[in-house]
Amino acid sequence: MAISLNRHYLKTFIDDDALFSMQEEVSEAVSFLYENKANAAGNDRHGWLTLPEDYDKEEFSRIKAAAAKIREDSDVLVVIGIGGSYLGARAAIEFVTSKNYNLLPGTKTKIFFLGNSISPTEINEVLAICKTCDFSVNVISKSGTTTEPAIAFRVFKKLLEAKYDKAEAVGRIYVTTDRAHGTLKALSDEEGYRQFVVPDDVGGRYSVLTAVGLLPIAAAGIDIDALMSGAADAMRRYTSTSLKENPCYQYAAIRNLLYRAGKKVEMMVAYEPDYTLMNEWFKQLFGESEGKDGKGIYPASAIYSTDLHSLGQYVQQGERILFETVVTFARPKTDLMIEEDGKNADGLNFLAGKPLSYVNRKAFEATVIAHTDGGVPNIVLEADTMDAFTLGELFYFLEKACAVSGYLLGVNPFDQPGVESYKKNMFALLGKPGYEDMTAQLLKRIEE
Amino acid sequence: MAISLNRHYLKTFIDDDALFSMQEEVSEAVSFLYENKANAAGNDRHGWLTLPEDYDKEEFSRIKAAAAKIREDSDVLVVIGIGGSYLGARAAIEFVTSKNYNLLPGTKTKIFFLGNSISPTEINEVLAICKTCDFSVNVISKSGTTTEPAIAFRVFKKLLEAKYDKAEAVGRIYVTTDRAHGTLKALSDEEGYRQFVVPDDVGGRYSVLTAVGLLPIAAAGIDIDALMSGAADAMRRYTSTSLKENPCYQYAAIRNLLYRAGKKVEMMVAYEPDYTLMNEWFKQLFGESEGKDGKGIYPASAIYSTDLHSLGQYVQQGERILFETVVTFARPKTDLMIEEDGKNADGLNFLAGKPLSYVNRKAFEATVIAHTDGGVPNIVLEADTMDAFTLGELFYFLEKACAVSGYLLGVNPFDQPGVESYKKNMFALLGKPGYEDMTAQLLKRIEE
Repeated sequence: MAISLNRHYLKTFIDDDALFSMQEEVSEAVSFLYENKANAAGNDRHGWLTLPEDYDKEEFSRIKAAAAKIREDSDVLVVIGIGGSYLGARAAIEFVTSKNYNLLPGTKTKIFFLGNSISPTEINEVLAICKTCDFSVNVISKSGTTTEPAIAFRVFKKLLEAKYDKAEAVGRIYVTTDRAHGTLKALSDEEGYRQFVVPDDVGGRYSVLTAVGLLPIAAAGIDIDALMSGAADAMRRYTSTSLKENPCYQYAAIRNLLYRAGKKVEMMVAYEPDYTLMNEWFKQLFGESEGKDGKGIYPASAIYSTDLHSLGQYVQQGERILFETVVTFARPKTDLMIEEDGKNADGLNFLAGKPLSYVNRKAFEATVIAHTDGGVPNIVLEADTMDAFTLGELFYFLEKACAVSGYLLGVNPFDQPGVESYKKNMFALLGKPGYEDMTAQLLKRIEE
Repeated sequence: MAISLNRHYLKTFIDDDALFSMQEEVSEAVSFLYENKANAAGNDRHGWLTLPEDYDKEEFSRIKAAAAKIREDSDVLVVIGIGGSYLGARAAIEFVTSKNYNLLPGTKTKIFFLGNSISPTEINEVLAICKTCDFSVNVISKSGTTTEPAIAFRVFKKLLEAKYDKAEAVGRIYVTTDRAHGTLKALSDEEGYRQFVVPDDVGGRYSVLTAVGLLPIAAAGIDIDALMSGAADAMRRYTSTSLKENPCYQYAAIRNLLYRAGKKVEMMVAYEPDYTLMNEWFKQLFGESEGKDGKGIYPASAIYSTDLHSLGQYVQQGERILFETVVTFARPKTDLMIEEDGKNADGLNFLAGKPLSYVNRKAFEATVIAHTDGGVPNIVLEADTMDAFTLGELFYFLEKACAVSGYLLGVNPFDQPGVESYKKNMFALLGKPGYEDMTAQLLKRIEE
């Protein structure tokens, strides 16, 4: 089932005329991805566009073999990476399996994501667990010098080398890094670690369908063939430049129209808790692609009905700066029949014989009506179910929509110049050689 | 150590004059909590204000006894509640122990929070786990008729009654509900369940220090005496009506000044992943208290440095509608020394001999400078460490700041009229008796 965009609840905010008046702008934005590529900002980062078909088949087989080995010989896999080297894989695992993946009785290899913070507590916890079981490490870093993953890799490499003999330790380290350059590449060559590639033409936040995402996802037992098939399906499907026919471009156009009308915060919403990390992946994808030059929609998120009891009040009656994009699924992963209760103390017997998924669907319909009545435009994306194939579709759909949306906004959707500021300050404050001048300046600002 | 507010990085946005010009407004807002109470909107919901001293000591003992019994006879505790009957307890458990509480080797009784969504998958997962172990249920609902928790309670009550004999099943159900009214109260009296009280004068989002929060928190092995002591300490400390002396009121005043200056989104930020759920608790507290009458700051959140690699780009260079409130801790829960590495492939040997908490602190300093340079005002709240006492301080500090902030904004910080809209629509769409007229209307809107 294709992903569709339901504009039914958007009508009072953006009608057909308004939407289709965007055709020319959209055609130009799309041209930056195809025929007019040479003029496009970030055109050296378009590799994700054809990835679902053009990926390295030999490496793909090696990923499956590595995942099988990890599932065979490891109680725990420690995945070390930050940003795009973290969110996609974790989002995929929670989406297809569960946010409780590590707690499920059927889980073979627990997966912990580390090196995405500088919290000692977080590292110590997983360290304690790894000391008492068999584990492997997948370190994901293009350069090998990003502080957070580099520190975590130091710690877990040392534990592996203390726990196993040299050859065994080497065999338990899986490196996903640059094809040719960087310190992690050099170290891997020297030590003989198994290597996988972060392609040059795919930026971090678009990298989930490369080895960056695929190895951890496969290690969780997820069918990565189905994932790639879903993405390939989306790649072939959302190609029409006609805005009337292409829901992917409609999504890009609508969010720009809403932004121009003063809706500066987008809440990505789903009614399944296992979507929580997909929301985080979405935030990086859109926030990092569009948040620049003083522009961009602030990406927020919610899981309903949970957050209807926390953010719901604000959405209904707060500042009218919001719009919502709701991802719904036609079929639940599993279902549960509501049964008759003899006492009916809760008064819910009128629901007896109905599946819980039905109630969840009604909650969605009820909410989308309430919120649009409250002045919050709602875009509805409809997908099939929370499996690997549908996830592949969603990844690709959202990536392409993001690229087009960024070009519509007039920014380069493939760079992230602002992320360097804190890094430079941090190196200076930590006294990294070469940053001495900056160190003195910053210390003065902290103390004054 | 008291919670302090550091305005150092705020200077270029709000100077002393601007802040202290708020004194009169703040004094009036505070008067609504004390001497001018009779004129205050929501004055029947001020019970949280004196709760840290005035709580029911007999019930407190019963909570501890119940928690001890649960830890003794249950592998799993299912906590059923939504909104304020969910977030505080979960936030506290993750703050003091770990976001991985259920995975820690030392965990005696796993705790699952259910009835806060309508996802069948989420319920089925925990149901499967409970079928193979000993478990108890704590259902938290003032009325007993809120759809989400009521459905979950139906399911788990049935499993308890199938698994244990009648008396044993009754002994494994802990009900936190209204003192006198409601269907859950009536059922509990009839069945003889252990009962705890949701006080009338404490709203859901302010209820974490009542039985609502305390029973699950104690069941996780957390010292609730220390928690209450921390809150009592804060209660006695943040009383001065002088804005110069009271960081709690300063926080309320500053966020209103920033809001008036067009900063419509507040990001609550911490550098510890175990703070993640505290951010969600914060979002309900402030979002539900302030988001009404077309007003209010949109509450967002982030965990750094993780989200510096997702939201960081937007914060640095996107729309200037943001401010950040950063909660820092003087001491980490645990620490880790960075060691020398023979090869120094990652170039991090300049950090050898430094604790990781030091690097985390520098990341904070680096970021607060980078973001303020980028035009994002930063408020810094400084607390001691992530233990029960400090958490009590934080809960009280934030609750009181929220109440004052809401009165400054000119809203009733204690109601949530907007939450009813989706509920009514949902009952109508589900065909609840009594909603027939509305049903027909809504169905027409869905289909047209």
